[in-house]
Amino acid sequence: MSQYLSLKQECYEANMLLPELNLVLFTFGNVSCVDRNQGVFAIKPSGVPYTKLKESDIVICDFEGKVVEGKLRPSSDTNTHALLFKTWSDIGGIAHTHSTYATAWAQSLMDIPILGTTHADYLTVDIPCAPPMKDPYIQGDYEHNTGFQIIDCLQERGLDYQEVEMILVGSHAPFTWGKNAAKAVHNSAVLEQCAQMAYISTHINPQVPRLKEALIKKHFERKHGPDSYYGQT
Amino acid sequence: MSQYLSLKQECYEANMLLPELNLVLFTFGNVSCVDRNQGVFAIKPSGVPYTKLKESDIVICDFEGKVVEGKLRPSSDTNTHALLFKTWSDIGGIAHTHSTYATAWAQSLMDIPILGTTHADYLTVDIPCAPPMKDPYIQGDYEHNTGFQIIDCLQERGLDYQEVEMILVGSHAPFTWGKNAAKAVHNSAVLEQCAQMAYISTHINPQVPRLKEALIKKHFERKHGPDSYYGQT
Amino acid sequence: MSQYLSLKQECYEANMLLPELNLVLFTFGNVSCVDRNQGVFAIKPSGVPYTKLKESDIVICDFEGKVVEGKLRPSSDTNTHALLFKTWSDIGGIAHTHSTYATAWAQSLMDIPILGTTHADYLTVDIPCAPPMKDPYIQGDYEHNTGFQIIDCLQERGLDYQEVEMILVGSHAPFTWGKNAAKAVHNSAVLEQCAQMAYISTHINPQVPRLKEALIKKHFERKHGPDSYYGQT
Amino acid sequence: MSQYLSLKQECYEANMLLPELNLVLFTFGNVSCVDRNQGVFAIKPSGVPYTKLKESDIVICDFEGKVVEGKLRPSSDTNTHALLFKTWSDIGGIAHTHSTYATAWAQSLMDIPILGTTHADYLTVDIPCAPPMKDPYIQGDYEHNTGFQIIDCLQERGLDYQEVEMILVGSHAPFTWGKNAAKAVHNSAVLEQCAQMAYISTHINPQVPRLKEALIKKHFERKHGPDSYYGQT
Repeated sequence: MSQYLSLKQECYEANMLLPELNLVLFTFGNVSCVDRNQGVFAIKPSGVPYTKLKESDIVICDFEGKVVEGKLRPSSDTNTHALLFKTWSDIGGIAHTHSTYATAWAQSLMDIPILGTTHADYLTVDIPCAPPMKDPYIQGDYEHNTGFQIIDCLQERGLDYQEVEMILVGSHAPFTWGKNAAKAVHNSAVLEQCAQMAYISTHINPQVPRLKEALIKKHFERKHGPDSYYGQT
Repeated sequence: MSQYLSLKQECYEANMLLPELNLVLFTFGNVSCVDRNQGVFAIKPSGVPYTKLKESDIVICDFEGKVVEGKLRPSSDTNTHALLFKTWSDIGGIAHTHSTYATAWAQSLMDIPILGTTHADYLTVDIPCAPPMKDPYIQGDYEHNTGFQIIDCLQERGLDYQEVEMILVGSHAPFTWGKNAAKAVHNSAVLEQCAQMAYISTHINPQVPRLKEALIKKHFERKHGPDSYYGQT
Repeated sequence: MSQYLSLKQECYEANMLLPELNLVLFTFGNVSCVDRNQGVFAIKPSGVPYTKLKESDIVICDFEGKVVEGKLRPSSDTNTHALLFKTWSDIGGIAHTHSTYATAWAQSLMDIPILGTTHADYLTVDIPCAPPMKDPYIQGDYEHNTGFQIIDCLQERGLDYQEVEMILVGSHAPFTWGKNAAKAVHNSAVLEQCAQMAYISTHINPQVPRLKEALIKKHFERKHGPDSYYGQT
Repeated sequence: MSQYLSLKQECYEANMLLPELNLVLFTFGNVSCVDRNQGVFAIKPSGVPYTKLKESDIVICDFEGKVVEGKLRPSSDTNTHALLFKTWSDIGGIAHTHSTYATAWAQSLMDIPILGTTHADYLTVDIPCAPPMKDPYIQGDYEHNTGFQIIDCLQERGLDYQEVEMILVGSHAPFTWGKNAAKAVHNSAVLEQCAQMAYISTHINPQVPRLKEALIKKHFERKHGPDSYYGQT
């Protein structure tokens, strides 16, 4: 019997949240989760529709993206997940979708500005849009380099992956992460909602200002600070 | 046995209308209702997903926002509800959501103009957008001060909370109220619909005029005036 | 036993199509159908939610809008329906909604331009937006005068109510009609679809031209002309 | 017993995907599939609502569009399907919808620009919008000529129907095709998604650039090239 059963289960259940939350068409998304003790992560198989996905289809890979267990080919984005898990030692899950509004912002090559408290409940900065890769990186190990692009973008802007759990990859689509797979998917849904509201707000008022600093601080801290008072402890 | 059973039931049922009416993602909303004889109100617990919310989870608070009964922490917005119930003696319920279009208008810091009879069936003025609070108020008792911001905005504009049952809190999201919790939620749905239609109308015709006074008066009075003839008596 | 049973049934079933087709929020709509032999029409009662509406709630009125049978008050828009049935001898049903995009066009006081064959499959002209009424008419018998406004608008533009089965009442919302109640509702759904697509098209290409005459003629005739070949005979 | 049973079944099942994927209102769409050995194709009957469509209603036609088997009249667009099957020897199915965003682009007479990898996963060029036909062709065998318009548009732009499986017919709506009926419908859904995201992206950033060539090449090849690694082999 597989030693990865519970990891596969977590991965399967988080993947099935994507269609439930209306974040995917067909197979345009994938979720993974890691087991750091065993040095592996579980990920959706490539191109399998959510309506047919079974828990036993989930593929187990190591941090180089090599298949450790599973009869199916893993997601074509596996090497992106592998690099992020390898580099960021404190994340437990990653989600990738082509959700409508977040992807449209990614295509427009623009950060999603922080305009309201919904956004500030999750992060204190604009949602970054990493620039498209330079051509040699595209022609090389593309998915691996997509991971680098994400890591570099945060680094260049001085952002911490534990505070900013979402990014747009320019011309492509969003990636999100979190302490586990379900949280990564949760962040994908929040990102889509913030993306849609920012789209509408900037069309109602093209001069809409960024959220004021005091509000950014307040909302983030009431949910995440040491004296947070949102949710049940 | 709790003396607040029917209050909790009203609160629970009204909260469950939010996902049914498509007004919330995850836990981004809360509804409360008051029992003035007992000097308390019932409110959703903080951060509990609607899919898991039970009637017995509902928290009972007094008008200072202190928990009177309940094992869970009340909504982080409890002090806003408390102040509104305390100040406005004739409301029975309050709803807070981050519904897409209403929140987008709040983020854009603009009133929602009265453009049609759908809006005039509910109120005779633009839906006010209260300005974001000054920094000291944000850094102080934020949720309590959010209540003040709402009360002040109506007062400064000479609006009566019994005639205008909805407001946008700038940079944040809408609050609505009414004679009971269900009516407060009803108003949240109407606000979202008016917000979406105003968005579309102003993009079809950027010169769209405000609704003419005679129509504002007629539609409001046929639903709310002394000679109203909408609905069953 | 009521002599209007089958009329009530037709009316009830057509009203229930409105929420099914996503054309109403709460009670923002109503459908009627006529029995010309008996000189009456059936209409939704005022303010009754679709979730609670029963066939026996349907109200029977004469062409002056007076209740002939029924325990409930008829729709507040009854006099509009009455005048249209009285004036237009060849319609069988009328539908009124506040559907999102059609209402947004009505609020913007603009006709919906004919831009594609979807529109031309139903009518050969822009969907007219009747101007808001003059104040004395609003202050008078408002709903009756809304009917006049609709009839006048078609007349002034030289349009035939048998060829143009839909209109926007400026600042208010759409009315549609047809040979029976189900066809009137069908037209409401088509109108909403055309309204949404025209909104999007004019934002993709602000210089989008009206549909060329040859296409207007072809599409309308293949569905409605003497040599029509759409559908089953 | 009909020799076309399995063909009818494929056709029926693919047609029923249209409402499931939210691509049609009422009867505004049709799907066909071909049996090249028998020289016929199966197509939806004209004007039959999806809620009432039965497998036995499907009509069998030859490549001139003449009915070979079936009691109902075939889709009014049958001659378009017939010409495409006759001309393009390597397609197995065709889908036609009036889906909201794709149709809005068709009405605006503009190609859908390639802005992201979602689009590049399917084709390497802008989604072409064929110009509306010249009047004599509209007045002639309109549906047959619609087929010509599609074929001509690809030819003039030097595009291969095996690489570009979707097109907008200007002022009308999209047609898509593929190796079988299900793939044709799949392409209709992808087209609608790309159309919506391109609409949003161009409104977020009117100067949004086309996707860079290296990304177009990479994404198309990882899904379709000789060394493709998307999906299961």
